[in-house]
Amino acid sequence: MGSVMRKVVCLLAWLSVGQVSGSYLPQDMNRTLQDLLQHYKISKSDIYDGKHVFPKEELKGKMESQMLFMGGVLEAYEKLIVHMLKELPTPSPLSATSGDKADTSGPSTAEPSAAGDTRSNLIKVLQKIRELKQHSYKEQVKILHELQKLKHIEMDNIKVQGKALWELPWIYEKANSLADNVMRRRRKRAAITATKTPAK
Amino acid sequence: MGSVMRKVVCLLAWLSVGQVSGSYLPQDMNRTLQDLLQHYKISKSDIYDGKHVFPKEELKGKMESQMLFMGGVLEAYEKLIVHMLKELPTPSPLSATSGDKADTSGPSTAEPSAAGDTRSNLIKVLQKIRELKQHSYKEQVKILHELQKLKHIEMDNIKVQGKALWELPWIYEKANSLADNVMRRRRKRAAITATKTPAK
Repeated sequence: MGSVMRKVVCLLAWLSVGQVSGSYLPQDMNRTLQDLLQHYKISKSDIYDGKHVFPKEELKGKMESQMLFMGGVLEAYEKLIVHMLKELPTPSPLSATSGDKADTSGPSTAEPSAAGDTRSNLIKVLQKIRELKQHSYKEQVKILHELQKLKHIEMDNIKVQGKALWELPWIYEKANSLADNVMRRRRKRAAITATKTPAK
Repeated sequence: MGSVMRKVVCLLAWLSVGQVSGSYLPQDMNRTLQDLLQHYKISKSDIYDGKHVFPKEELKGKMESQMLFMGGVLEAYEKLIVHMLKELPTPSPLSATSGDKADTSGPSTAEPSAAGDTRSNLIKVLQKIRELKQHSYKEQVKILHELQKLKHIEMDNIKVQGKALWELPWIYEKANSLADNVMRRRRKRAAITATKTPAK
């Protein structure tokens, strides 16, 4: 129990260090994460080694850029948790359907109860991440998927090479005009903000 | 020569179909691309088969999203052209340094002159793309590189798994507050625009 309290204190410390109010994290998700951290234990020295799995540096600066990077982070979390679920021992048929701690008699798992808890907790977290992605990061995730497709361009294919050269004039024009328009719009907004801000 | 003219007409048609004014494409780059299309020939049926190497659909909608996708497109073009350069026959030492059409006596190439022209043309196009990326898409390319790093998260590593769960409360908070702030800012901007627009 002392260990759980320590985790709670550390989580609060983490939130305060990150200067986030904590108002968006539902209590049940917080509890679920604490339970999961009992299974996926990490030492204090690992926590404070200065290396983040998900760097915070990209979550500063222009909001649209932050949103896009966050879309990628949520995608990565989803992938990671799906991977962690696959790594858990296969649940027995009974515990898989009921998710009940009492169903520990299944022959196919080493620690069915603990694994069952971990599984249901991971599923809860996964659902929360998917909801957030679907609700607030739809646009960003769509772009990320389209960007992903660019990785599959057949670079060895002479037809693709020729066609890409053929498409380049339009792309080059568009890239220039787009950058110009964004710059012009930023200047316009800055001017509007300046006229709206009362002189001191 | 007739073939060159056909290419020019097709290029103009392409630009007009794409509703781009053509004012950003330098004449020398246009010429270089036409020369390259002599080497990387594509048939009319391939041009108009309705399949683009780089989809135009993502280059509509919100400007910031377009900018990011365009950053990815420029990255892909750079990679493709570097790949195309590698595929060319190795230049002879003399033609490699002078880039002169007259240096066709090198023993190491099948068609040194044509390959030399193609090489120097590809290099010119590559430079233009790199300049555009560096000048107008720095921010987008930076995010793309950071997103790329997320692909290398060690999903099998239990320490990484635990640490990712540990970082999740902050990330989840940030993702929610960021989406809320962006939504609030969009509403505010819409309101400012509404007050600035005179009623008809």
